[in-house]
Amino acid sequence: MVEQLPTIAQWGIGIGALPTGPMNSITDVQGVTVGHVTLAVDHVQTGVTAIKPHSGNLFRDKVPAAVHVINGFGKSVGLVQVAELGVLETPILLTNTFSVAAATEGLLDYTLAQSPEIGISTGTINPVVCECNDSYLNDIRGRHVTRTHAVEALHDCSQEVIQGSVGAGRGMSCFGWKGGIGSSSRYVQIESNAYTLGALVLSNFGDPAWLCLDGQPLSALAPQGNAASSEDKGSVIVVLATDMPCSSRQLGRLAKRAVVGLARTGSYIGHGSGDIVVAFSTAQTIPHTPRGVAEPYLSVHEEHLAHGFPAVAWAVEEAVWNSLACARSVVGRAGHVRHGISGMRDEILRRRARGHSTL
Amino acid sequence: MVEQLPTIAQWGIGIGALPTGPMNSITDVQGVTVGHVTLAVDHVQTGVTAIKPHSGNLFRDKVPAAVHVINGFGKSVGLVQVAELGVLETPILLTNTFSVAAATEGLLDYTLAQSPEIGISTGTINPVVCECNDSYLNDIRGRHVTRTHAVEALHDCSQEVIQGSVGAGRGMSCFGWKGGIGSSSRYVQIESNAYTLGALVLSNFGDPAWLCLDGQPLSALAPQGNAASSEDKGSVIVVLATDMPCSSRQLGRLAKRAVVGLARTGSYIGHGSGDIVVAFSTAQTIPHTPRGVAEPYLSVHEEHLAHGFPAVAWAVEEAVWNSLACARSVVGRAGHVRHGISGMRDEILRRRARGHSTL
Amino acid sequence: MVEQLPTIAQWGIGIGALPTGPMNSITDVQGVTVGHVTLAVDHVQTGVTAIKPHSGNLFRDKVPAAVHVINGFGKSVGLVQVAELGVLETPILLTNTFSVAAATEGLLDYTLAQSPEIGISTGTINPVVCECNDSYLNDIRGRHVTRTHAVEALHDCSQEVIQGSVGAGRGMSCFGWKGGIGSSSRYVQIESNAYTLGALVLSNFGDPAWLCLDGQPLSALAPQGNAASSEDKGSVIVVLATDMPCSSRQLGRLAKRAVVGLARTGSYIGHGSGDIVVAFSTAQTIPHTPRGVAEPYLSVHEEHLAHGFPAVAWAVEEAVWNSLACARSVVGRAGHVRHGISGMRDEILRRRARGHSTL
Amino acid sequence: MVEQLPTIAQWGIGIGALPTGPMNSITDVQGVTVGHVTLAVDHVQTGVTAIKPHSGNLFRDKVPAAVHVINGFGKSVGLVQVAELGVLETPILLTNTFSVAAATEGLLDYTLAQSPEIGISTGTINPVVCECNDSYLNDIRGRHVTRTHAVEALHDCSQEVIQGSVGAGRGMSCFGWKGGIGSSSRYVQIESNAYTLGALVLSNFGDPAWLCLDGQPLSALAPQGNAASSEDKGSVIVVLATDMPCSSRQLGRLAKRAVVGLARTGSYIGHGSGDIVVAFSTAQTIPHTPRGVAEPYLSVHEEHLAHGFPAVAWAVEEAVWNSLACARSVVGRAGHVRHGISGMRDEILRRRARGHSTL
Repeated sequence: MVEQLPTIAQWGIGIGALPTGPMNSITDVQGVTVGHVTLAVDHVQTGVTAIKPHSGNLFRDKVPAAVHVINGFGKSVGLVQVAELGVLETPILLTNTFSVAAATEGLLDYTLAQSPEIGISTGTINPVVCECNDSYLNDIRGRHVTRTHAVEALHDCSQEVIQGSVGAGRGMSCFGWKGGIGSSSRYVQIESNAYTLGALVLSNFGDPAWLCLDGQPLSALAPQGNAASSEDKGSVIVVLATDMPCSSRQLGRLAKRAVVGLARTGSYIGHGSGDIVVAFSTAQTIPHTPRGVAEPYLSVHEEHLAHGFPAVAWAVEEAVWNSLACARSVVGRAGHVRHGISGMRDEILRRRARGHSTL
Repeated sequence: MVEQLPTIAQWGIGIGALPTGPMNSITDVQGVTVGHVTLAVDHVQTGVTAIKPHSGNLFRDKVPAAVHVINGFGKSVGLVQVAELGVLETPILLTNTFSVAAATEGLLDYTLAQSPEIGISTGTINPVVCECNDSYLNDIRGRHVTRTHAVEALHDCSQEVIQGSVGAGRGMSCFGWKGGIGSSSRYVQIESNAYTLGALVLSNFGDPAWLCLDGQPLSALAPQGNAASSEDKGSVIVVLATDMPCSSRQLGRLAKRAVVGLARTGSYIGHGSGDIVVAFSTAQTIPHTPRGVAEPYLSVHEEHLAHGFPAVAWAVEEAVWNSLACARSVVGRAGHVRHGISGMRDEILRRRARGHSTL
Repeated sequence: MVEQLPTIAQWGIGIGALPTGPMNSITDVQGVTVGHVTLAVDHVQTGVTAIKPHSGNLFRDKVPAAVHVINGFGKSVGLVQVAELGVLETPILLTNTFSVAAATEGLLDYTLAQSPEIGISTGTINPVVCECNDSYLNDIRGRHVTRTHAVEALHDCSQEVIQGSVGAGRGMSCFGWKGGIGSSSRYVQIESNAYTLGALVLSNFGDPAWLCLDGQPLSALAPQGNAASSEDKGSVIVVLATDMPCSSRQLGRLAKRAVVGLARTGSYIGHGSGDIVVAFSTAQTIPHTPRGVAEPYLSVHEEHLAHGFPAVAWAVEEAVWNSLACARSVVGRAGHVRHGISGMRDEILRRRARGHSTL
Repeated sequence: MVEQLPTIAQWGIGIGALPTGPMNSITDVQGVTVGHVTLAVDHVQTGVTAIKPHSGNLFRDKVPAAVHVINGFGKSVGLVQVAELGVLETPILLTNTFSVAAATEGLLDYTLAQSPEIGISTGTINPVVCECNDSYLNDIRGRHVTRTHAVEALHDCSQEVIQGSVGAGRGMSCFGWKGGIGSSSRYVQIESNAYTLGALVLSNFGDPAWLCLDGQPLSALAPQGNAASSEDKGSVIVVLATDMPCSSRQLGRLAKRAVVGLARTGSYIGHGSGDIVVAFSTAQTIPHTPRGVAEPYLSVHEEHLAHGFPAVAWAVEEAVWNSLACARSVVGRAGHVRHGISGMRDEILRRRARGHSTL
């Protein structure tokens, strides 16, 4: 395996405030794991990324969850039921737009094998699969992701989050640069309790003219001469995890703050973009089968929840930047190229240093 | 005080299934109280109705709540914040469309007096006031309801729910007949626990051609020769209370079933109608000021919650019918008249008896 | 092909008011066609149903559309983008819950073949596939529907709508009886213009204890001794078509009235139910590629739109009943049986006749 | 009248791109006017601001409109009906939280006087009043705004938009500084057509630690030693106007981009904040009374609409900054003070100049 390029924290850059977790990724939230399958041959530059809230049987022990649609130009599946019932009952898969069906098949293979009761003695299951359009680099019409790839991504899950041009991020573009998978985390202190909040993004959005790093405009560095659109097209999927005890309504409120992180990178929420947020809490599980009449669930007070809001903004901003910083250049379909922004690191740091001398 | 006309249960009619509470009203839910102020002189036929979830300080001890907008052609206030935060922090007032502002002032008078900290050492408060348009019988442009009336309705609250042409219901019309305030309740058994679910409606909707009683069409009895619209105009406010422990998301799911009860009375959710549902649970309170980091809240399992769904449908249907059955005729603005349907009771029961002989 | 069983209009029963179109089906709306593929061997009792708004290239010439989620316990795909953009750009497919992915693949095959520009020189496409759970009669875990079946259903589309135990309706159950595909239509007169509004349902819901026909309770006829749940489980998909010129917002308002038709059949919107409505207008198309800066779109006035509201309620109610009346009995998985209600026709008509003598 | 302090354009700062209109305010949209009443004596530091989409009778000739709730911790009225019907039928009033009722009364006085048919021969009217909490500087419990003030603000409307500590903005705070009313506009070129998009904000939000100007962090300048919260509390109301022909759905999409402008000033959408957007188009009116069966409405193509998205972000960001730049210091309730940020202008420009030398 090729070594991962440095994150922006490794560049020496911190976003906002609050300490990050030890891995500065979504897997700092206890129990969360992430896996990838990457397809990278010629015009096939795509893949699947899996996020598991816990390692058990998620259908039987669901987690509280919420979705937030920032812009609905997207083809994600499973959002309607999460909104109604406030729970996630499968891992989340990310892939390209036309591979949602294959990923769904794989997710069904995986979950039906785990739970033979589904569709026999109990109801069905709600697979959650989100997507971005990687057709600039990938032969998306070829639908090269198979259900087997999806199952492999689920089995690949571990605490280590490989970032950059991997998994579902393999063919994605961001602000004219190579985008993909990025992650980050923050500690949120509420009185004597320290909670963790992690973000993972699949970045595929952004108008090259408006990229910012922590407020510093970087449009002068925008890639030239390629087919980079001058519009904010594409999409972004944001997955938020936390061990803060939250109701689904409260997770929805956290999810709504993701847009702040996106805006701080330079997004103005382009028209042709499926900007979708899925948030879950690992603090407690909700059983498929009732254990009694009513059960106690912990919720942080709404005023405490508010401490998580800037944490979401900063973790998402940093995750998008990590998806850029860690992404190696990719040559794909029709010879199209997206360059990794890491080659610009020194120039970016130079500009930033001069900017900071002004503070 | 004039005696209340009989409810349909007193006519001998039960709707759907499940036992009703002892008073067959929303106040069967422990702690809930209802009060009215009625203005009934010449062209002034209007009023205020107050519903209190509990008798304490609701700002300091809020109740979980949800709103559901069936049709948004309405001017209710306070719904946005209930949707965001999932709590009710004032009693609910009902009145006519153009008296919402006066009722809001009265509700502020009442709540600011209770809580001197509001707007000084803590934030503001979210008054919830819902309305229907009683302009057929009432001089609505005169805005005869004052803030004092609103406070009086709040002080009038008791366990007894007067139904019919009273309070906010004084000037309302329903299916061409006199509408107004109606209520009903159901017991919901979940394993060994018996919960209560109560509904109170302010009825002001319905096309006379489509009125039904428990499936029996009553269009043949439709009032003739008055200005009764042939369209389903007007509005209806439904307040649901329960002692079932529910999250605000779950209360929202209960609230969505109110439309079934309305449809069963003959509504097709007319265009010009503000059909609004507010639901709350009295099972537990949520403190304004955090008591710790996180607190346990009970929630019934989603499969148990489902037992409440038909209860909502039936309680709402019966509450609408009680608003009709208990309403005395009113002569109001410009000599307009709405007759109470109670005069038709024998004819309705005769039709129903014949219909039932067929079962 | 086995002949279709009579609809309730052929039983002599009309629902509500307003004239029906010549075929009393969704295809009375000019240009709309419907096709089926039915799988009916042993434990495989399922299929696909396709609805096309027009016979051209729907990606290039989209139709205004809206979705409404009555209850979100469902796995339909494509709803998020319809809500955002207000257009439908593929035919609608209906199938069983676990065949949504296969149907999506088939819909992609079909649409990508029609439009080679998709994913190359323009963006992607938003397939709309809705579902119910037919696992009582069908081996749903076997995922027997293939992408080829989906394409075949699209090619099967014609003006004739076969109703009952066909297509996606093959394995569905409704109020303990055999459910499936049903349709109906209404003329809506607005001043001098006659518009058509059609409904097609995939019925798979309903508590046997509460089935009604036009207000007449039929619980006494409820099927006995089988595994019929005593709860309102399952799902229902409602597709509404009209040639009334409507914005997507207005189509959303029409869609919200479908629940009235469902409630009139006896639904109380059960918990475990994906109750989803998709509505579109054929009055005009919206080009994928801009033809100029701004284009004129006709919209009926909101007060005229209201004439469509009862039409929706009645067409949906009649469509559900046609799905029952036209459904032949099916024996499926594990020897499970659902009987067609048509065997009860005489008894139902007898009860109805006696009930009507009371009017 | 005291002269208005310079806007940030007068400081020499432009935000984003696109040319501004001649007045760089919401009234660059033809027909839009703005008026204020300001109360500024001792502990009474509050007021009313009115925005009129056109100078005619808005009830009879409505404008397409949409609302978007960024965060629903707010008490604005009228939003439910705008969401349902997609039209605005009164001017918009802004005031403090506890004066919403008084402003509603004034708006009713004004509109009922204009249209004697309301509540007599036709339905009622939906007043739109939005609010922020100015209790730090203003005696909000005193409810000093009267219905007469509201009417006066409506009569004060003109093309000139006074910005800063005026009208509803008199007592507002923003990032620990004096906030209030700000405005800005952008030209949006679509092929050969130039459209105007204008924003007006009532700013009352922001954590002092995170204020930014065009990416430049200004936390080092944060006001010290006063009761400035370290949280992002408060609220913001954004009104968007455009002459682009848009459906209400499209206006909703424009409204959703306002959050980008807020995020760019440093907001992370605090918990205790009513962040509300109301957007309308002046391109065409929608008659209260139908003129025929259906009417043609122009809509820009969705891809053209997208040109308005960055325009919204930049106009909102600049409007917030103008609300800061133009605001004079105010001493109010309990001796509380908010300083105008204009005193920091030279320091801000110095930092900005050094930052820019790095580009």
